[in-house]
Amino acid sequence: MTIRIKRMTIIGVGLLGASLGLALKKRGMVQQVTGVGRRKESLDVALERGAIDNATLDVETGVAQADAVAIATPAGLVAPMLDATLAAAPNDVVLFDVASTKQAICSHAQQACPQPRRFVGCHPMAGGEKFGPAHGNADFYVDSVCLVEQDTAIDATVRDFVCALWRSVGARVVDVDATAHDAILARTSHVPHVVAAALTRLAADHGVTAPFIGKGFRDTTRIAASRPEIWRDICRENHTAVIAALAAFRNDIEAFEALLKADDAAGIEAFFEDGAAARHKVTES
Amino acid sequence: MTIRIKRMTIIGVGLLGASLGLALKKRGMVQQVTGVGRRKESLDVALERGAIDNATLDVETGVAQADAVAIATPAGLVAPMLDATLAAAPNDVVLFDVASTKQAICSHAQQACPQPRRFVGCHPMAGGEKFGPAHGNADFYVDSVCLVEQDTAIDATVRDFVCALWRSVGARVVDVDATAHDAILARTSHVPHVVAAALTRLAADHGVTAPFIGKGFRDTTRIAASRPEIWRDICRENHTAVIAALAAFRNDIEAFEALLKADDAAGIEAFFEDGAAARHKVTES
Repeated sequence: MTIRIKRMTIIGVGLLGASLGLALKKRGMVQQVTGVGRRKESLDVALERGAIDNATLDVETGVAQADAVAIATPAGLVAPMLDATLAAAPNDVVLFDVASTKQAICSHAQQACPQPRRFVGCHPMAGGEKFGPAHGNADFYVDSVCLVEQDTAIDATVRDFVCALWRSVGARVVDVDATAHDAILARTSHVPHVVAAALTRLAADHGVTAPFIGKGFRDTTRIAASRPEIWRDICRENHTAVIAALAAFRNDIEAFEALLKADDAAGIEAFFEDGAAARHKVTES
Repeated sequence: MTIRIKRMTIIGVGLLGASLGLALKKRGMVQQVTGVGRRKESLDVALERGAIDNATLDVETGVAQADAVAIATPAGLVAPMLDATLAAAPNDVVLFDVASTKQAICSHAQQACPQPRRFVGCHPMAGGEKFGPAHGNADFYVDSVCLVEQDTAIDATVRDFVCALWRSVGARVVDVDATAHDAILARTSHVPHVVAAALTRLAADHGVTAPFIGKGFRDTTRIAASRPEIWRDICRENHTAVIAALAAFRNDIEAFEALLKADDAAGIEAFFEDGAAARHKVTES
């Protein structure tokens, strides 16, 4: 499917939103991109970078003429931005988001949208510690994976269009149920962020200094440097799955403590062996 | 201080032991290196690589003529190897190890050695997931940190010699008390290894597959691929500090769960903010 969009609106011109605008424009997939933001400064940077062609602070103005709207705000703002978009955009608009949580957002969309719904929950797994439109780039999504919500309630043509859009900017699309997505990402991303924060707190509480820090600690805690407000929102949006996964994780740590207290050499080795095998399994499968 | 060693013996020709032999030989600091190992295969690789000049499976033979002995075995074997060395080596031999735990080893040395003791506990913080003499290299210790036990019970000349040896192969020496070392490393290395294993187990238990794995998870769990028997030994050697640190870590995770259950937005954000500040503090200080 060849993607040609006349008027695209991107709500939220951070790293993901600005990169999407640059990627679509570079590939000639869009005629005009409108950026909607909360701060004029970010919009100015996105304009300068060429990620958007025009900018507004007002959502309803920004989406009024849109053929497609990408909601690229932090997770906690997707639902209110979707409501504002639905109130002002044309009926046949294509809608999707890029947030790291899906269940609450897709469930809200299912309530708020006319049926079959034209909103598709998306989670492009790209990014890192950098943020803001200044770091956006046109090849940001090349060789990434984009998880795309699969649900019979979604308009099939709209979903095909959104999948084709992600493929066109270089992503591999993987279908996922919204609830399953959140249970998986709690384990692969949200709990690891909480754990990285707790590990750095553990070291700092003891007054540890840099000479005692090796490569292992640096790697393990790198994501602790991510933006606090983003991870606050993600954990709140996905609180049920995150709480369950944290409890399971904490019980496993406690089980290891029991092995160590009992000086169970075989059990301790088996714990590490299983961890090594598990890493190979989940990263190579 | 210029290091000139006539006869050096390295017990354990893995990554650290083989790299030490190569580093000393490359810099003309040693005339002859004898390797002692448990398996002929490793000794053959170390000989082929030029890390050692001759090899034996018998500790007492290997150390009988030694001017200096490096015990580069896994942590759990340092004490018995030290005992065997003390029984067979010349009285004026210089002794040190390279294990990741120090308190139990140095305390054993204090009991076992004549006073002032000529054994110095060392922990060169170099390495990674690779292991074995095949990966050894002469510049392995360049720009690394070597933590060296500081204790008035150690012969000062011997300690100066060992510090100079580490500096000569490119390491920066940092003085540390053995018990403080273990409390710090429990937090910066041993607990992170347990945590990385638990995180991969959490993902594998849920049947997670590679498309759902991002860079964050890969970084955070990289050390879960380390050798199980090495980490079994390290945790057993340092069980008191590891158990205490794991309990503190687990309590912090539980505190985060409580914030999430209460939907305490400010508290959740503060937790992540403190984690980000803590990482900056411990890695940059």
